[in-house]
Amino acid sequence: MARSKNRPAARSILARNLRRFRAVKAVSQEALADLAGLHRTYLGSVERGERNVSIDNIERLAEALGVTVSELLKEGKNEIPS
Amino acid sequence: MARSKNRPAARSILARNLRRFRAVKAVSQEALADLAGLHRTYLGSVERGERNVSIDNIERLAEALGVTVSELLKEGKNEIPS
Repeated sequence: MARSKNRPAARSILARNLRRFRAVKAVSQEALADLAGLHRTYLGSVERGERNVSIDNIERLAEALGVTVSELLKEGKNEIPS
Repeated sequence: MARSKNRPAARSILARNLRRFRAVKAVSQEALADLAGLHRTYLGSVERGERNVSIDNIERLAEALGVTVSELLKEGKNEIPS
Protein backbone atom coordinates (compact mmCIF):
# COMPACT_ATOMS: atom_id res chain seq x y z
CA MET A 1 0.00 0.00 0.00
CA ALA A 2 2.97 2.29 -0.53
CA ARG A 3 2.26 5.62 -2.10
CA SER A 4 3.43 5.55 -5.69
CA LYS A 5 5.39 8.74 -6.16
CA ASN A 6 6.21 8.28 -9.83
CA ARG A 7 2.71 7.64 -11.02
CA PRO A 8 1.21 10.53 -12.97
CA ALA A 9 -1.44 12.19 -10.85
CA ALA A 10 -5.02 11.27 -11.62
CA ARG A 11 -5.73 14.84 -12.69
CA SER A 12 -3.04 14.61 -15.38
CA ILE A 13 -4.28 11.24 -16.61
CA LEU A 14 -7.82 12.61 -16.86
CA ALA A 15 -6.63 15.76 -18.63
CA ARG A 16 -4.62 13.82 -21.19
CA ASN A 17 -7.38 11.29 -21.82
CA LEU A 18 -9.99 14.01 -22.28
CA ARG A 19 -7.84 15.68 -24.92
CA ARG A 20 -7.05 12.35 -26.55
CA PHE A 21 -10.63 11.08 -26.69
CA ARG A 22 -11.79 14.46 -28.00
CA ALA A 23 -9.17 14.33 -30.75
CA VAL A 24 -10.06 10.77 -31.78
CA LYS A 25 -13.75 11.56 -31.81
CA ALA A 26 -13.20 14.96 -33.40
CA VAL A 27 -15.19 16.76 -30.73
CA SER A 28 -14.27 20.35 -29.87
CA GLN A 29 -13.88 21.48 -26.29
CA GLU A 30 -17.00 23.59 -26.70
CA ALA A 31 -19.03 20.71 -28.14
CA LEU A 32 -17.98 18.36 -25.35
CA ALA A 33 -18.75 20.96 -22.71
CA ASP A 34 -22.21 21.42 -24.21
CA LEU A 35 -22.84 17.66 -24.37
CA ALA A 36 -21.76 17.24 -20.74
CA GLY A 37 -23.68 20.27 -19.52
CA LEU A 38 -20.51 22.01 -18.33
CA HIS A 39 -19.02 25.39 -19.17
CA ARG A 40 -16.28 25.48 -21.82
CA THR A 41 -13.87 27.40 -19.61
CA TYR A 42 -14.44 24.89 -16.81
CA LEU A 43 -13.65 22.02 -19.20
CA GLY A 44 -10.56 23.91 -20.32
CA SER A 45 -9.28 24.09 -16.76
CA VAL A 46 -10.04 20.37 -16.25
CA GLU A 47 -8.03 19.61 -19.40
CA ARG A 48 -5.13 21.55 -17.91
CA GLY A 49 -5.31 19.55 -14.69
CA GLU A 50 -6.19 22.63 -12.68
CA ARG A 51 -9.44 21.38 -11.21
CA ASN A 52 -10.15 18.94 -8.43
CA VAL A 53 -13.08 17.72 -10.53
CA SER A 54 -15.85 15.70 -8.89
CA ILE A 55 -16.92 12.16 -9.75
CA ASP A 56 -20.31 13.40 -10.99
CA ASN A 57 -18.66 15.73 -13.50
CA ILE A 58 -16.17 13.04 -14.56
CA GLU A 59 -19.17 10.81 -15.23
CA ARG A 60 -20.88 13.50 -17.30
CA LEU A 61 -17.75 13.87 -19.42
CA ALA A 62 -17.37 10.10 -19.83
CA GLU A 63 -20.99 9.71 -20.91
CA ALA A 64 -20.71 12.63 -23.32
CA LEU A 65 -17.64 10.96 -24.87
CA GLY A 66 -19.25 7.50 -24.92
CA VAL A 67 -16.59 5.91 -22.73
CA THR A 68 -16.63 4.57 -19.18
CA VAL A 69 -15.34 6.54 -16.21
CA SER A 70 -12.71 3.84 -15.77
CA GLU A 71 -11.51 4.28 -19.37
CA LEU A 72 -11.37 8.05 -18.93
CA LEU A 73 -9.05 7.59 -15.94
CA LYS A 74 -6.91 4.80 -17.33
CA GLU A 75 -3.20 5.39 -17.47
CA GLY A 76 -1.25 4.61 -20.62
CA LYS A 77 -2.27 4.16 -24.22
CA ASN A 78 -5.54 2.35 -23.76
CA GLU A 79 -7.77 1.35 -26.64
CA ILE A 80 -9.93 4.20 -27.76
CA PRO A 81 -13.38 3.20 -28.97
CA SER A 82 -14.20 5.26 -32.04
CA MET B 1 -22.53 9.57 -27.48
CA ALA B 2 -25.88 8.54 -26.09
CA ARG B 3 -26.31 8.77 -22.38
CA SER B 4 -26.34 5.27 -20.94
CA LYS B 5 -29.29 5.18 -18.58
CA ASN B 6 -28.80 1.63 -17.38
CA ARG B 7 -25.20 1.98 -16.35
CA PRO B 8 -24.70 2.07 -12.59
CA ALA B 9 -23.70 5.57 -11.57
CA ALA B 10 -20.01 6.17 -11.00
CA ARG B 11 -20.65 6.86 -7.32
CA SER B 12 -22.18 3.40 -6.89
CA ILE B 13 -19.33 1.71 -8.74
CA LEU B 14 -16.79 3.50 -6.56
CA ALA B 15 -18.71 2.66 -3.39
CA ARG B 16 -18.97 -1.03 -4.25
CA ASN B 17 -15.32 -1.28 -5.32
CA LEU B 18 -14.10 0.44 -2.16
CA ARG B 19 -15.99 -2.06 0.00
CA ARG B 20 -14.83 -4.96 -2.17
CA PHE B 21 -11.15 -3.98 -2.24
CA ARG B 22 -11.24 -3.35 1.51
CA ALA B 23 -12.74 -6.80 2.11
CA VAL B 24 -10.19 -8.55 -0.11
CA LYS B 25 -7.32 -6.71 1.52
CA ALA B 26 -8.84 -7.04 4.99
CA VAL B 27 -8.56 -3.32 5.67
CA SER B 28 -11.12 -1.70 7.95
CA GLN B 29 -12.88 1.50 7.04
CA GLU B 30 -10.98 3.25 9.80
CA ALA B 31 -7.60 1.90 8.66
CA LEU B 32 -8.25 2.90 5.05
CA ALA B 33 -9.38 6.37 6.09
CA ASP B 34 -6.19 6.77 8.12
CA LEU B 35 -4.01 5.55 5.25
CA ALA B 36 -5.70 7.94 2.83
CA GLY B 37 -5.66 10.87 5.23
CA LEU B 38 -9.45 11.12 5.26
CA HIS B 39 -11.99 10.99 8.07
CA ARG B 40 -13.68 7.67 8.75
CA THR B 41 -17.18 9.16 8.63
CA TYR B 42 -16.34 10.81 5.31
CA LEU B 43 -15.17 7.46 3.90
CA GLY B 44 -18.37 5.89 5.23
CA SER B 45 -20.48 8.36 3.27
CA VAL B 46 -18.37 7.76 0.13
CA GLU B 47 -18.95 4.02 0.55
CA ARG B 48 -22.68 4.70 0.66
CA GLY B 49 -22.50 6.72 -2.56
CA GLU B 50 -23.61 9.88 -0.77
CA ARG B 51 -20.62 12.05 -1.68
CA ASN B 52 -19.68 13.78 -4.89
CA VAL B 53 -16.08 12.85 -4.10
CA SER B 54 -13.25 14.67 -5.85
CA ILE B 55 -10.60 13.14 -8.08
CA ASP B 56 -7.87 14.00 -5.56
CA ASN B 57 -9.64 12.06 -2.82
CA ILE B 58 -10.37 9.15 -5.17
CA GLU B 59 -6.64 9.08 -5.91
CA ARG B 60 -5.76 9.06 -2.20
CA LEU B 61 -8.08 6.09 -1.67
CA ALA B 62 -6.70 4.23 -4.68
CA GLU B 63 -3.12 4.75 -3.52
CA ALA B 64 -3.96 3.68 0.01
CA LEU B 65 -5.49 0.47 -1.39
CA GLY B 66 -2.60 -0.11 -3.81
CA VAL B 67 -4.79 0.00 -6.91
CA THR B 68 -5.12 2.47 -9.75
CA VAL B 69 -7.85 5.09 -9.94
CA SER B 70 -9.09 3.35 -13.08
CA GLU B 71 -9.36 0.01 -11.24
CA LEU B 72 -11.22 1.66 -8.40
CA LEU B 73 -13.82 2.99 -10.85
CA LYS B 74 -14.11 -0.09 -13.02
CA GLU B 75 -17.53 -1.61 -13.43
CA GLY B 76 -18.07 -5.33 -12.99
CA LYS B 77 -16.04 -8.03 -11.33
CA ASN B 78 -12.56 -6.92 -12.22
CA GLU B 79 -9.46 -8.70 -11.03
CA ILE B 80 -8.53 -7.67 -7.54
CA PRO B 81 -4.79 -7.56 -6.86
CA SER B 82 -4.19 -9.02 -3.40
